[in-house]
Amino acid sequence: MAELILHEYSNSGNCYKIRLTAALLGTPIERREYDIMAGETRTPAFLANVNDNGRIPVLQIGDRFLPESNAACVWLADGSPLIPADRFDRADMLRWMFFEQYNHEPNVATLRFWLAFVGENALSEAQRAAIPGKRAGGDAALAVMEKHLRTSGGFFVGSAISLADICLYAYTHVAGEGGFDLSAYPAISAWIAAVERTSGYIPITA
Amino acid sequence: MAELILHEYSNSGNCYKIRLTAALLGTPIERREYDIMAGETRTPAFLANVNDNGRIPVLQIGDRFLPESNAACVWLADGSPLIPADRFDRADMLRWMFFEQYNHEPNVATLRFWLAFVGENALSEAQRAAIPGKRAGGDAALAVMEKHLRTSGGFFVGSAISLADICLYAYTHVAGEGGFDLSAYPAISAWIAAVERTSGYIPITA
Repeated sequence: MAELILHEYSNSGNCYKIRLTAALLGTPIERREYDIMAGETRTPAFLANVNDNGRIPVLQIGDRFLPESNAACVWLADGSPLIPADRFDRADMLRWMFFEQYNHEPNVATLRFWLAFVGENALSEAQRAAIPGKRAGGDAALAVMEKHLRTSGGFFVGSAISLADICLYAYTHVAGEGGFDLSAYPAISAWIAAVERTSGYIPITA
Repeated sequence: MAELILHEYSNSGNCYKIRLTAALLGTPIERREYDIMAGETRTPAFLANVNDNGRIPVLQIGDRFLPESNAACVWLADGSPLIPADRFDRADMLRWMFFEQYNHEPNVATLRFWLAFVGENALSEAQRAAIPGKRAGGDAALAVMEKHLRTSGGFFVGSAISLADICLYAYTHVAGEGGFDLSAYPAISAWIAAVERTSGYIPITA
């Protein structure tokens, strides 16, 4: 297999998703760290060689570059049990991964980044004004997850862990750092514990 | 095959993606219209029976419900040439579909909805304040697409149309309704024409 290099900022849940997927699969990846606070993903060299979009993570596969965390997870898990074999279940896994990027990440992950990494005092006026909307959006996303997990088979798509769980877990389990109260979501809390019992699991700090 | 019902608001580009995918595949789908302006996707019946998340489109497959437009396109196109056979290309197709939902749709589609459907006078203060950020975000997404299409094989993943093109086309070709000037993006304009020459193509008004 081609050499794999993860271009990343290791505190990012989007980058962690890829590391966690690789760990559950037992696939070795090399890691290259960029300081996003210092603009290291907006340099001309990064934009020309790694990602035009100026964002991490990017999974380098030999001499090809794959941006978008959830797409990188799909590449890594191709043909593995982390992607369901059934046609509906496979699309349903992607359904939760698109939900994650549209309804969850822009709210839950952004508040974590603003409050725990940038710091409330360093936020712009526009960012401060956006906090209540992102708080409501994040709680709405967590409520959709909570309701689903109450009647699912323990994971997002049935009773086995899939990329849907890995991708939603990445920012959900650290949502407290963005001021979300996970004790209000018992089914989510039980699911977090189940993800963490999976063989090969590594924490975000690994 | 199970009966397919698209729960939709037909002006939505997200709903059109699914109709366009089905048309290119020659797959018949029944359509059920909801007036999102009148809150018809937030009723207790819709939330209980169709989508907890209160959003359309939802593709009903027999008695199962699949939200998220891009996931519905994947279900429809499973095993067809609209999904590349190569492992990297397949993940790269998803990469553009995640880019669409994260960087493109919240900017390009939202401005179209606000300016062409809600109307600028009916926007809230917060929405009006968000316009410049969404304008910049939409132009940044279009610039990433333009740069990629200048050196790609004519479509987003190589030289054949895939779901990446369908999903990005849906809101890009009507971006003018949100105040974006597509004449500034010649490679995008050529790609729009190429999508519209595809056998089986239907317009958003069909």
